[in-house]
Amino acid sequence: MRRPEVGGREAGREARRPLVVAVDGGGSRTRLWVLDPEGRLLGRGEAGSSNLTAAGVEVAARAVTEAAERAGLRSAGPGESLEPAGPASPGTTGARGGTGWLDGPVAVVALALAGADREPEAGRMRARVEGLFPGSSVELVHDGVGALLAGTLGGPGLLLLAGTGSLALALGPEGQEVRAGGWGYLLGDEGSGYWIGREAIRAALRAHDGRGPATGLTTVLREAAGLEDVTALVGPVHRGERDRGWIARLARPVVEAADAGDTVAARILDDAAGELALLVRAVLERAAFLAPLETVPVVAAGGLFRLGPSWGRRVAGALAREAPRARLAERVQDPVVGAAYLALRRFHGELPEEVIERLHTLRQGGQGGRRAPAGGGLLQPV
Amino acid sequence: MRRPEVGGREAGREARRPLVVAVDGGGSRTRLWVLDPEGRLLGRGEAGSSNLTAAGVEVAARAVTEAAERAGLRSAGPGESLEPAGPASPGTTGARGGTGWLDGPVAVVALALAGADREPEAGRMRARVEGLFPGSSVELVHDGVGALLAGTLGGPGLLLLAGTGSLALALGPEGQEVRAGGWGYLLGDEGSGYWIGREAIRAALRAHDGRGPATGLTTVLREAAGLEDVTALVGPVHRGERDRGWIARLARPVVEAADAGDTVAARILDDAAGELALLVRAVLERAAFLAPLETVPVVAAGGLFRLGPSWGRRVAGALAREAPRARLAERVQDPVVGAAYLALRRFHGELPEEVIERLHTLRQGGQGGRRAPAGGGLLQPV
Repeated sequence: MRRPEVGGREAGREARRPLVVAVDGGGSRTRLWVLDPEGRLLGRGEAGSSNLTAAGVEVAARAVTEAAERAGLRSAGPGESLEPAGPASPGTTGARGGTGWLDGPVAVVALALAGADREPEAGRMRARVEGLFPGSSVELVHDGVGALLAGTLGGPGLLLLAGTGSLALALGPEGQEVRAGGWGYLLGDEGSGYWIGREAIRAALRAHDGRGPATGLTTVLREAAGLEDVTALVGPVHRGERDRGWIARLARPVVEAADAGDTVAARILDDAAGELALLVRAVLERAAFLAPLETVPVVAAGGLFRLGPSWGRRVAGALAREAPRARLAERVQDPVVGAAYLALRRFHGELPEEVIERLHTLRQGGQGGRRAPAGGGLLQPV
Repeated sequence: MRRPEVGGREAGREARRPLVVAVDGGGSRTRLWVLDPEGRLLGRGEAGSSNLTAAGVEVAARAVTEAAERAGLRSAGPGESLEPAGPASPGTTGARGGTGWLDGPVAVVALALAGADREPEAGRMRARVEGLFPGSSVELVHDGVGALLAGTLGGPGLLLLAGTGSLALALGPEGQEVRAGGWGYLLGDEGSGYWIGREAIRAALRAHDGRGPATGLTTVLREAAGLEDVTALVGPVHRGERDRGWIARLARPVVEAADAGDTVAARILDDAAGELALLVRAVLERAAFLAPLETVPVVAAGGLFRLGPSWGRRVAGALAREAPRARLAERVQDPVVGAAYLALRRFHGELPEEVIERLHTLRQGGQGGRRAPAGGGLLQPV
């Protein structure tokens, strides 16, 4: 149900600049940006999970609505369409919290959401977003695509995601998607934080049984869990009281144990780095559109790329062995930039150079002004 | 609330023979036997799950009540105490279905239930069973203990359980319990049916990605699941629509694929057999009370020991390498015999030879009469 338009707003509409909306949503939070067609950031808002598999379509749609309201859009009520709400004062960026209403019609909405590679959730979510932004053009991709585009901004490259889960992904010029991994915690996610944490618990249990060598991980895990005995972790893990995020965060103490000389921890990390390199190699071998490149930039995303230099050396070493053409170059800080790229590309068809420059700057944490000095965007991944 | 006793029954009570009750309960069903102190089977009943972890204490207590009623005991109502209900006609075995009421006070109840190694469930279940059988002596152990005792009937030996999960277990003469494995599907159960099935799915996904060699398992899994594409299994597995039992049952087609020459399937099975042998070795190394034995009988339990000769050769070969003192000898057909052993031992203190003979016969599927010919109890495990 749309609110009746007042004559004045209707009459003034053609003068107002259109807006584009970009959304990045995962298991823990949703981030939404409102930009003008030149790539200037006008507003941003944040809300809870919009993972289509775990949270579901209705929760995800509510998170998008909430984040949009905080970014400066307005809805008439729960489930109703979102609209710009009156002329923005110059310089207003619609800060989180809901001040600074935006003006102008929403022309494009691009969303990169976890779980959006699976039907029927994707179809239902697209319909919900079309209802929230009537008249705008909606694009929905999965969060891996958003992270990759945040790193490459349309250039050639490959995503290596290593957070709670793991995945490698490349996009071809005709939209081809080549993926390896990402099969979830029960059947895949090799080399991810969850995988490393789970292997650490397994190694401590095997040591407890006498099936595996003694390891300092036993002490590490007792301390991390605040338990007398590592076997006391088994119940809480199976009941979900120690969830996958908690297990994934064990990766850091595992790295510390390896740094302190624990050979069991070191082997787990070597195996993990090898698994990540294998993901990259599998995508390189299958992505024909990357074949002409002498070196392929690897966009690194996920918490595992914050684990310090010893882990970084392991990943670099494994990549040198398994996939020597790969160059670990960019760490994605802000995947919502990938959704912004998608939204602006849909608006323009082909992106003007100055818009790409602004996205580059936004990626560095700027407000969409001038591009950072050449090379400044190439973060060391570890 | 006890029903009022009628004078005739009260007066006749001291003349009646006492009864012992044995219960074996797991994830899918509960089996209950009523025996006389000489080990003759008087009644048996079956009901649903009494896994204390998965089903919970109340569901388990209801399953025990139901199975007891079907075995020939009677309760006044839900949650009320169970009692023998009038003189049994001679030869009555209280067949499933609830005919043939039993006579005599219940002196001992022994239960071997999945999840009974964990408090507080075990304590609460013990209290519930004491309420169901007022005045009787209650013993509660976990299902592994029941399966081991069903195989050894108190003699020396070691249990190797390989069904949906995996576990090795030995019991010392002073009640010491030495265990390896059994850490559940997320952290352990190496070499189990679930483990084999999950490794098969992982191998097919790795082949799909180009991370692993092509394998006939891809076709095997497509056919087992009735799907066009093995990646379509990922969602149903994570959502539990393809449950752990289903995954464990993939072990059989994996064996068939290995028999047909698939090297990926063969490697999974070799690894599984190696993991099972490692469980046995770990228990042998830690169980000091088994050290004097030149050879140690290994009681085999669980569905994996029905997978045919090629799988049997793999297990035997791995045991010969890892644990040469182990002799795979008995396959437990009927773990409730272990609970019956426990109940009768508690009744007698030490079991008379003729009672052990009757339990031997019950293990062969007899009705508690004469012992089978020497050696007849030593089933080929595969």
